[in-house]
Amino acid sequence: MLSLRFWLGSLSIQKPITSSSRRLLASSQKNGSWNNPRSFCCCVKAIKNNDFISESNSNFPLSSSPPRDSPLSGVEDTLISYVSGKKKATEVAHQVWKQVVQRGDTVVDATCGNGFDTLAMLKLVADDSGKGRVYGMDIQKDALDKTSTLLEESHCLNEKQYLKLFHICHSKMDEVVPLDASVRLVAFNLGYLPGGDKEIVTRSETTLLALEAAKRIIIPGGLISIVVYVGHPGGWDELEAIQAFTSTMTVDNWICCKLQMLNRPCAPIPIFLFRR
Amino acid sequence: MLSLRFWLGSLSIQKPITSSSRRLLASSQKNGSWNNPRSFCCCVKAIKNNDFISESNSNFPLSSSPPRDSPLSGVEDTLISYVSGKKKATEVAHQVWKQVVQRGDTVVDATCGNGFDTLAMLKLVADDSGKGRVYGMDIQKDALDKTSTLLEESHCLNEKQYLKLFHICHSKMDEVVPLDASVRLVAFNLGYLPGGDKEIVTRSETTLLALEAAKRIIIPGGLISIVVYVGHPGGWDELEAIQAFTSTMTVDNWICCKLQMLNRPCAPIPIFLFRR
Repeated sequence: MLSLRFWLGSLSIQKPITSSSRRLLASSQKNGSWNNPRSFCCCVKAIKNNDFISESNSNFPLSSSPPRDSPLSGVEDTLISYVSGKKKATEVAHQVWKQVVQRGDTVVDATCGNGFDTLAMLKLVADDSGKGRVYGMDIQKDALDKTSTLLEESHCLNEKQYLKLFHICHSKMDEVVPLDASVRLVAFNLGYLPGGDKEIVTRSETTLLALEAAKRIIIPGGLISIVVYVGHPGGWDELEAIQAFTSTMTVDNWICCKLQMLNRPCAPIPIFLFRR
Repeated sequence: MLSLRFWLGSLSIQKPITSSSRRLLASSQKNGSWNNPRSFCCCVKAIKNNDFISESNSNFPLSSSPPRDSPLSGVEDTLISYVSGKKKATEVAHQVWKQVVQRGDTVVDATCGNGFDTLAMLKLVADDSGKGRVYGMDIQKDALDKTSTLLEESHCLNEKQYLKLFHICHSKMDEVVPLDASVRLVAFNLGYLPGGDKEIVTRSETTLLALEAAKRIIIPGGLISIVVYVGHPGGWDELEAIQAFTSTMTVDNWICCKLQMLNRPCAPIPIFLFRR
């Protein structure tokens, strides 16, 4: 891949020549329905494709205690805290990552934002072998600056060696992540850059391209983590688009789950796509 | 309340004279959208009423470990197992109940079905003081028979003293639950009776009346637990109606959460309404 390489502080940042402002400005308004007939059609198709049979409303005998070998045991309290209104969606996401990501892994922060996700990822993958890698990207240079500053302030000088930052749209992630990288996690924190221009938000078109790219690069046992924000214009459209996208992911290969606060319509929505 | 009292095995069953077949036969088809503009309007109204401000997509510093004093710690593994596709919605519900319900409590099984929920509740509330109480109801006599049989087979002779069964529609629950009862849990397992007539299903009209009744009788710290089934005709309509209902519940008094598998469109959907 051709790229222009430049430096931001002590961080290596690559900007592909092909990148352009794909992350479009939001102008659309909520269209009055957050799951349209088209997305339902996708659901129907998914049923047919996967020959999926509805779990009936059969009651069941009292179960014994849940299995201790859950791949996600450890997220527990955080998930419960979210369900009962005590934790933020991003905190839930970070806790879920911790159960999936191992030291030495390769992960992707598709939306660096202010850098908190990037920092969390660095702490998860950094190890003595130098194998771990975080590919971070954002369409806004300001976001990469903020990420860099956060890492400086967090005294993560050692961890920086594991980071590659790219000033590109997340839809181009497979142009910067090596083909042979075994990516364990791709994380999206959608919406606008906190403290930045709120008119610049992620949009369905590029988010879907990014999700397609994430699907291609994620390894079995990996996770695509998405936090969707619906409190800004276009947010509901983006959620709809993501739901339609996930509804077509095969049950054999993917576990796709959404958590949603029903009486907080603008609350962020965590979505987890586990690759089996 | 006037009632006809009769006996089913050793269980006391009361049928109010006023009860009738309010749980209507399903005839409607899925209308192609599972969250219609009307329900979105409710969301907008909820924003205004509660002066709710959207949680911004601000990133956050790495959090410390989650608080151990979560009222729901213990559900952990089950919730995780559901999110990662290993547990059924009803199992999640039972585990959540265990965190909320105490021995000696009064609880309501709004849809006895085959009796597994009723049995689970009895085991939660039964204590030596004889204070615990389960009010169980179903519009179908067959369901009450099955519940009774299950309790017999489960050797729950002692627990039966804590149970009152009613052959009524759940929309009438506040006609059979005493006004002074402090109800900690009202549980709904919607849809049709497993093994019964699949044409007889719960319907939005009566489910909403039942939810209104549940709201009236539940005490602070209590829980309305709902498992919604969308795999049968009318199921999506019922989910829509419930979501619209919950979207108007005030944030100050209620935490309303939904878990949903996005690529299993017919999978049961657990909804938890915690009263603060």
